[in-house]
Amino acid sequence: MLLDLKAIETWVEELREALHQEDAPRAARCAAHLSSRRVARELGQAEPELIVAVLSSMDATRAGRVAGYLPPPAGAAILSSMPPAEAGLLLGAVPSDHAKHLLQSLPAPARDEVVAGLAPATRETLEALSRYSPETVGAAMTTSFLVIPPDALVAHALDAITSAPPEIEKSTYVYVVNQAGALLGVASVRDLVRASAQERVKNIMADRVIAVRTGDSAVEAARVLRNRRYAMLPVLDDEDRLRGVITLDDAADILTREVADQFSSMGGDRGDESFFTTPLGAVRRRLPWMASNVLLNLIAVAVITGFEDTIARVAILAAFLPMITDMGGNVGIQSLSVAIRSLALGEAQIRDVSKAVRKELLVGICNGIVLGAFFGAIALIMRGQWLLGVVAGTALGINVVVAGIVGGSLPFLIKKLGKDPAMMTGPLLTTITDVTGVTVYLGLSTLFLARLAV
Amino acid sequence: MLLDLKAIETWVEELREALHQEDAPRAARCAAHLSSRRVARELGQAEPELIVAVLSSMDATRAGRVAGYLPPPAGAAILSSMPPAEAGLLLGAVPSDHAKHLLQSLPAPARDEVVAGLAPATRETLEALSRYSPETVGAAMTTSFLVIPPDALVAHALDAITSAPPEIEKSTYVYVVNQAGALLGVASVRDLVRASAQERVKNIMADRVIAVRTGDSAVEAARVLRNRRYAMLPVLDDEDRLRGVITLDDAADILTREVADQFSSMGGDRGDESFFTTPLGAVRRRLPWMASNVLLNLIAVAVITGFEDTIARVAILAAFLPMITDMGGNVGIQSLSVAIRSLALGEAQIRDVSKAVRKELLVGICNGIVLGAFFGAIALIMRGQWLLGVVAGTALGINVVVAGIVGGSLPFLIKKLGKDPAMMTGPLLTTITDVTGVTVYLGLSTLFLARLAV
Repeated sequence: MLLDLKAIETWVEELREALHQEDAPRAARCAAHLSSRRVARELGQAEPELIVAVLSSMDATRAGRVAGYLPPPAGAAILSSMPPAEAGLLLGAVPSDHAKHLLQSLPAPARDEVVAGLAPATRETLEALSRYSPETVGAAMTTSFLVIPPDALVAHALDAITSAPPEIEKSTYVYVVNQAGALLGVASVRDLVRASAQERVKNIMADRVIAVRTGDSAVEAARVLRNRRYAMLPVLDDEDRLRGVITLDDAADILTREVADQFSSMGGDRGDESFFTTPLGAVRRRLPWMASNVLLNLIAVAVITGFEDTIARVAILAAFLPMITDMGGNVGIQSLSVAIRSLALGEAQIRDVSKAVRKELLVGICNGIVLGAFFGAIALIMRGQWLLGVVAGTALGINVVVAGIVGGSLPFLIKKLGKDPAMMTGPLLTTITDVTGVTVYLGLSTLFLARLAV
Repeated sequence: MLLDLKAIETWVEELREALHQEDAPRAARCAAHLSSRRVARELGQAEPELIVAVLSSMDATRAGRVAGYLPPPAGAAILSSMPPAEAGLLLGAVPSDHAKHLLQSLPAPARDEVVAGLAPATRETLEALSRYSPETVGAAMTTSFLVIPPDALVAHALDAITSAPPEIEKSTYVYVVNQAGALLGVASVRDLVRASAQERVKNIMADRVIAVRTGDSAVEAARVLRNRRYAMLPVLDDEDRLRGVITLDDAADILTREVADQFSSMGGDRGDESFFTTPLGAVRRRLPWMASNVLLNLIAVAVITGFEDTIARVAILAAFLPMITDMGGNVGIQSLSVAIRSLALGEAQIRDVSKAVRKELLVGICNGIVLGAFFGAIALIMRGQWLLGVVAGTALGINVVVAGIVGGSLPFLIKKLGKDPAMMTGPLLTTITDVTGVTVYLGLSTLFLARLAV
């Protein structure tokens, strides 16, 4: 039986209908055809009681996987609604990296109750995991993997793989560790099949192992994993002891999230606001950024104030102010976004900054001339005054060039300083273009004031 | 020997030094410790002759992989600089999905020469691949995979896996196809190890197979692959014949690119501009968007023109115009970016639009009151006129609310219309907020004109 995208969508529809009818056993049957993540997305919309009923109709491993992917508010809601012992049982079946997040999204009293219901081993694992800081490999790894001593026979290693418990079902590697838990090598199921069953694992394992450390950046580790095209990488502590693994599908999540973060930060969203952030949380996160924005904008206000007399004499000049500042901002954001994209997708590197500036300079000059002329013509037609058109068009043209260069090089400079494109990149950029645009525009206008004020 | 992130960086440094000294054999030796993608990124900066020399010092499979990851200008440069026969040989070793892109980046006469140097089978594969439209699975798949007839023995299947040629080295699945090439089932190396060697593959294969079709959306397929956590998915044509596979590391690339595209489009970058786009290409891509932007901005210009008399009487009003429009734009872009992020990362779905609007309404009101009061106080201090402060602050506050709601719901509405957040989302948003801000600000000012004009 083939399950293609169309068939998958049909099962999603069936699942939705079952949920709509609050038919938990049928929902669980439909869910069997879908990925845990997809099931969780659909379940996340339902009432906690129904979610619990559906999860209870699944086997424990599967229920744990689905619960691990539930959106945080739904996950917290079902754990709080269950008796602590059951919640502990469910949480015990959730892969450890997701379990930690689930637990963190619970309010403190409920969390303590659920933790009390956990098996001691699970509790220890989760406590150990929560000690790693959030951006590190330690916080992103899973703690289920297969280990074997170096003197084990190939036959035993194969046995370990084929009879691995369901939570490490996708494992195609066994890690060879010594008695202290230090990693000595790795053997893939392919290596093992190729070897004689009575050979010792240490003789056939690869001892040149690519590994990451618990304290390494999760993004860097994800990049290495994606580049190497392995299914997973071992995670070691500073004493080379194997602590966990990080898998390629986790790496895919880390990398997409990273790209989203790079872009979001430009718009002042630190990436820590998700769809599930409460309105108050969103206010607290966004307000400081906006307030700094207002303060930066005051520079432009001050510049315009300096030209108060000019505007008092030729009020129509004000009409084009927002357009000149807006276009500067838009063009800047556009080249900023091209630059962030190139850096985030690894197309460009820091040393390419001069190439980026040169390109943006050329693009800016071409666009500036065309847009300036276009805009000048519009001003001419609207106001029948060619000089106003020329002044506004020139200001726009110059502003476009400046915006392109600043926007196209800022991400490179920020990265060179060892930072990610920061939250203030956007406001900084618009302030620079605002001040440039307004100064050129009102400066030229003042210069030609006698001829404009007719 | 452990190769951790620090050790990898050391090898990158060594590789750079070798490239700097134009020592091709040493560069190839360093490259052996690094992923093909990373090597390609470093090589991409070197002169074509040096790249060719380094590639020649590697074995053919590896050279092909590295060449496949070269940035397009470098890839095109080395293929053009090689004798057609050699270029054909190199291209034959590049995984088919990358080979197609490389070929496309060559100028037409050089392309024909290189194609002529290809082995007939490779040429056919590449020609077939280039017939799929770019956003489909067909265009993203690789055409190397392992197949076996249903009556083959498990022992033969294991043999096929362990002796697979290097270009399918990562394969952990064999696909079972009938004589017509139609997919019947799949067996993982784990399934095979667990079975008896003399069993027939058809008796142990999984016949419930998740597959995608050549014409399916590559992004959808990548999502299924990531959700299912498989190493690869088979790609079928409409007659269920196996045409290729799509791998999890390709899926990771497709998904990160997709997220980048969603954000880029907001800034008017259609995602088809890369770091390697020529300046002229960039002008052609960006100019139409900017020109439409100017046209949309004319609405705000027209609104302000309507208030020309008010500004003529109280010129200082103009000073706050850009701030009010800028802040509306910034806030709008911020909530737009949160919404795009939630949708792109799968946290929110279309039906959540009302939840998103309600949240943005609350956030907007809170932020609007705080920012409005803050801004009013600034205006009061700067101009010593409390009424100007109240008017400007009120306009800003209202604009922030509108911007939040429009920005936070636009991506949902666009997606509901079955489209991706489009290129005009940004300009549309800023036009709406500009017009709102300017109308409220200048409208209120006109209302209180007698008391402002002192």
